[in-house]
Amino acid sequence: MKIYDIALGPYPARVRIALAEKNMQSGVEFVPVDLLKGEHKAPEFLSKNYSGTLPVLELEDGTFIAECTAITQYLDALDGAPTLTGKTPREQGLIHMMSKRAELEVLDAISTYFHHATPGLGPDVERYQNAEWGLYQRDKALRGMRYFDSILRAQPFVAGGAFSMADITLIGGLIFAGYVDLAVPAECSALLAWYDRMQERPSVKNRVAMSESATAST
Amino acid sequence: MKIYDIALGPYPARVRIALAEKNMQSGVEFVPVDLLKGEHKAPEFLSKNYSGTLPVLELEDGTFIAECTAITQYLDALDGAPTLTGKTPREQGLIHMMSKRAELEVLDAISTYFHHATPGLGPDVERYQNAEWGLYQRDKALRGMRYFDSILRAQPFVAGGAFSMADITLIGGLIFAGYVDLAVPAECSALLAWYDRMQERPSVKNRVAMSESATAST
Repeated sequence: MKIYDIALGPYPARVRIALAEKNMQSGVEFVPVDLLKGEHKAPEFLSKNYSGTLPVLELEDGTFIAECTAITQYLDALDGAPTLTGKTPREQGLIHMMSKRAELEVLDAISTYFHHATPGLGPDVERYQNAEWGLYQRDKALRGMRYFDSILRAQPFVAGGAFSMADITLIGGLIFAGYVDLAVPAECSALLAWYDRMQERPSVKNRVAMSESATAST
Repeated sequence: MKIYDIALGPYPARVRIALAEKNMQSGVEFVPVDLLKGEHKAPEFLSKNYSGTLPVLELEDGTFIAECTAITQYLDALDGAPTLTGKTPREQGLIHMMSKRAELEVLDAISTYFHHATPGLGPDVERYQNAEWGLYQRDKALRGMRYFDSILRAQPFVAGGAFSMADITLIGGLIFAGYVDLAVPAECSALLAWYDRMQERPSVKNRVAMSESATAST
């Protein structure tokens, strides 16, 4: 398998964490994509992923799978023993719901803030910006953090009693928040405590170095 | 099971079509939510779905599952015989990718156009509008239609050789396009032919009447 990504990216983090949680990182070849040069918006990359976003997984047969949720679903099904996307129908439904909610209310909202209300990836890449929309999404993300704080006061993980894809998505959101200096409100103590615990996980801690070790072992 | 929705809604259509494709519509109680009165943004509904969107599924144990993809995943897993979200890991990955892409590039883009660059649900409900962003998303949706036309020139269904959740999501997009009078470009003949075929499916044809027949049988 090949993964087209950038080591520090918040969305790429989602797939790197999933890979490590599944213990599937060996044998993966990481292909860096230069976001600052806009390589992800160039025709060659768009032929791999129409939406022009990272990461993209390439299978041995040449199939490209984009979108973090889709890649995670693929990886989790690969060994026949799902640990990230749920076993029972109820678990699957709740994990997909909470992961989507973490996208909508935090991660994607912060991404929109970054690309629209800050210099983002620079004027050569950010061809269209809508600052008002970006600021609106920043405020939405802050509300989203408060929502997830309320959830994490009642249960140890985002989708219930076990670590799942939904935690990974929210981790991606807080990684992005860190990059854009959007502080988690101090009163969100349950969210902050959860994030401290998440950062202790080897999958989260070692995600950036993963591409180096994978390259070294291949 | 209860479903909180509105019979004509494009997102509710996604779950109604999934229910009918799985032959699970009997015994479902439909609870109408009045969008024009903003019931979906009122505290009582937000306690069911923080994001304030339809549809929401309520299980017998009182669990709420929101987000069409999550509900579809739940329903498809329920009978142990997935027909909408893929059997193999590769199928699952491709179906989730194409369904997400149909959201990003068509359905969600048209929804944003509707809520931001048209009167939407009216001034009492649309408290914040960003018309420029709405028009940008309309243009994105038109490009998205051309992309899916190119896909449907090469394969009979959105995610490959079989009907799936990805088709349902794109159907939702074209239903919404019809409501807002956003015509599919005439040169998108493969997309238009696919949509004609989709509208012949009983699940698509009978989706609005579904709540009446379900109520009649309960």
